[in-house]
Amino acid sequence: MENGALVSVKHESKTTSTITIKGILSLLMASVDEHNDTSKRVISLGMGDPTIYTCFHTTTVAEEAVADTLYSHKFNGYAPTAGLLQARNAIAEYLSHDLPYQLSSDDVFITCGCTQAIDVSIAMLAHPGANILLPRPGFPIYELSAAFRHVEVRHYDLLPEKGWEVDLDAIEALADQNTVALVIINPGNPCGNVYSYNHLEKIAEIARKLGTIVIADEVYSHLAFGDKPFVPMGVFGSIVPVLTLGSLSKRWIVPGWRLGWFVINDPCGTYRKPKVVERIKKYFDLLGGPATFIQAAVPRIISQTEEVFFQKTIDNLKHTLEICCKEIQDIPCIFCPYKPEGSMAMMVKLNLSLLEDISDDIDFCFKLAKEESVILLPGTAVGLKDWLRITFAADSSAVREGMERIKSFYQRHARKSSKQ
Amino acid sequence: MENGALVSVKHESKTTSTITIKGILSLLMASVDEHNDTSKRVISLGMGDPTIYTCFHTTTVAEEAVADTLYSHKFNGYAPTAGLLQARNAIAEYLSHDLPYQLSSDDVFITCGCTQAIDVSIAMLAHPGANILLPRPGFPIYELSAAFRHVEVRHYDLLPEKGWEVDLDAIEALADQNTVALVIINPGNPCGNVYSYNHLEKIAEIARKLGTIVIADEVYSHLAFGDKPFVPMGVFGSIVPVLTLGSLSKRWIVPGWRLGWFVINDPCGTYRKPKVVERIKKYFDLLGGPATFIQAAVPRIISQTEEVFFQKTIDNLKHTLEICCKEIQDIPCIFCPYKPEGSMAMMVKLNLSLLEDISDDIDFCFKLAKEESVILLPGTAVGLKDWLRITFAADSSAVREGMERIKSFYQRHARKSSKQ
Repeated sequence: MENGALVSVKHESKTTSTITIKGILSLLMASVDEHNDTSKRVISLGMGDPTIYTCFHTTTVAEEAVADTLYSHKFNGYAPTAGLLQARNAIAEYLSHDLPYQLSSDDVFITCGCTQAIDVSIAMLAHPGANILLPRPGFPIYELSAAFRHVEVRHYDLLPEKGWEVDLDAIEALADQNTVALVIINPGNPCGNVYSYNHLEKIAEIARKLGTIVIADEVYSHLAFGDKPFVPMGVFGSIVPVLTLGSLSKRWIVPGWRLGWFVINDPCGTYRKPKVVERIKKYFDLLGGPATFIQAAVPRIISQTEEVFFQKTIDNLKHTLEICCKEIQDIPCIFCPYKPEGSMAMMVKLNLSLLEDISDDIDFCFKLAKEESVILLPGTAVGLKDWLRITFAADSSAVREGMERIKSFYQRHARKSSKQ
Repeated sequence: MENGALVSVKHESKTTSTITIKGILSLLMASVDEHNDTSKRVISLGMGDPTIYTCFHTTTVAEEAVADTLYSHKFNGYAPTAGLLQARNAIAEYLSHDLPYQLSSDDVFITCGCTQAIDVSIAMLAHPGANILLPRPGFPIYELSAAFRHVEVRHYDLLPEKGWEVDLDAIEALADQNTVALVIINPGNPCGNVYSYNHLEKIAEIARKLGTIVIADEVYSHLAFGDKPFVPMGVFGSIVPVLTLGSLSKRWIVPGWRLGWFVINDPCGTYRKPKVVERIKKYFDLLGGPATFIQAAVPRIISQTEEVFFQKTIDNLKHTLEICCKEIQDIPCIFCPYKPEGSMAMMVKLNLSLLEDISDDIDFCFKLAKEESVILLPGTAVGLKDWLRITFAADSSAVREGMERIKSFYQRHARKSSKQ
């Protein structure tokens, strides 16, 4: 076979070199299975999927809404590819609560989770020579999508000493006339940052000055539990067009339902030209979209979920974060420069000089998985070598035991001179 | 804004010119709403979504399976992006029944309906200069995907006088070293063809000779009700690699559940190289996929659905097809060259010389929608000008009334000299 199927392999080098979180985590899980005694339960503080812990269970409101639309027999057929109108309306209404203007259903496109919303936004902005500004550390699906859509990636740093704020000077230096978007993730994955109104406004102004738009990944929207409230980037939509990406996944704890959205916040109509919208609509014809009956349940899920459910999640996250932060103080080889104020994850710096036989973050995580059955994500997977991402969306006993085991691990591997 | 968001508009001309079936049908529906009296119910024989008719309702086995996985609380989290293992296994098992070799779960990737499987297959084969051979008439999502993935389309004809078989000579003339795939749709949409074992074998041999692979769109698999049984293209997987695309949508009548598959039939391992598989896996990381709990229900849906349910669908389709074919004989301006043996649609040729004030197929369909509230798809939408696609997956009273109204329409518009 001398044909294209093989030729295409030659064009993939850029994409296959991209790391995925799921790829690394499954390798880590495999190394647990191979080497460890079975008596030690696996503690995963590696992935942003809290559903494996019973304290993070969705509300019965959501489950009943979906069961009812399923049994109604009305939603077994195709939905419009941009999404079911009532779901688009409900999402527009939901997001507009926190905006100084009103979104309409036309601004909302329904995606298979936030993951697909990421890929759609990059695919829609791609053109030959285009580049995109991504945060470091960040979420590697952006890099993977950019590789498949042939968009050049330029990384700007998040600043740990400033609560993981965007390095605004770096943005100015990196951007040029081919910069199609500046991506921010707020509340932040992997850092747990929650950006202030002022910082977001500065981001909007700089994007406007550079003639680019903002992609605001708000999959963790409203999961803020520090001093700063969550402010959606869309608030600044009249300064600069904002593509807001979100989903039910995290706030309703149903990542497997794959109900996400891609929303155009552009009250001035700078981005939202008829040809752009036409092209987006056609692209959605290729995507499949979430199940119609799940879409049909969205209005009820959004309107009937009670505040007490959201508050319980926030309380759980606050509690497990406290445990994490307290325990980290007893583990000299890791250091947290910023206590998260939102999302479900934090970044900690690894001090390798205190460890005897650990070469880097990846080595740390593989040995930790093998010896202690604890899964953490190596920072390399999110762009920061010799850091670790710890997900605290787990039940408190798992977090406590996980941190205890990391402490034992440290004590076993501590450099002799530095042992306590 | 001088930026990429606007630049990208310049690159879209090819894609926005692509017609979509949903686009045309919604224009047709709009012209009904505007112009007609409300006493006439709309009869849609335009779209391949039978769920609006009560006689086409999925089995309770399927609905209960999904409700149970939803309420199990076990499937609210992420599935692996290639699909839940038990679902991949069940689909491999299901498809292997009709193959001379055994598929494994590794051969199966779960998609959001067959639509996404189409786009994945084209995206995976795309490379600069690539071309793909598509049937005419065909299914326009292929053209749309090829436009977005920058793959050149070359059309080969289906031959109505030969039961809409592939024009094998045309294939040889069209293909070159950059031909990445030959697409066949069997059972056929829009023609209702069911290909014989011999014809499929010839297709496989010609694809092998040309050094390309076959994409076999089998979304209507098993919906065959003529003399020829449905034969999956994968049967010839040892002659040429076959990418089989399918879904639960048509056979289980749940198009809105978005449960499809992309399957590599390649027992000789010609296509299935580690780098190709790696690239496919990474691509799936971007896609989102169907809801985990729907995936989890697939093994039970496949294993517990009884033959009587499938038979009822076949009987319904046979019955409505008979009505269609009989009525067509009384409408001189349309002619059916081939009575469908499968799927849910047929193509009929429009004889414009018998009509007074109808300029083409599109004009016919818009006037029919306005005057009679009957929706048919203009052949132009599937690549054949002055033909019509009639979907017979409707209840028999709708089909009968629809055909009666087409007859009235003909009589009103018949050229004076030819009026009966």
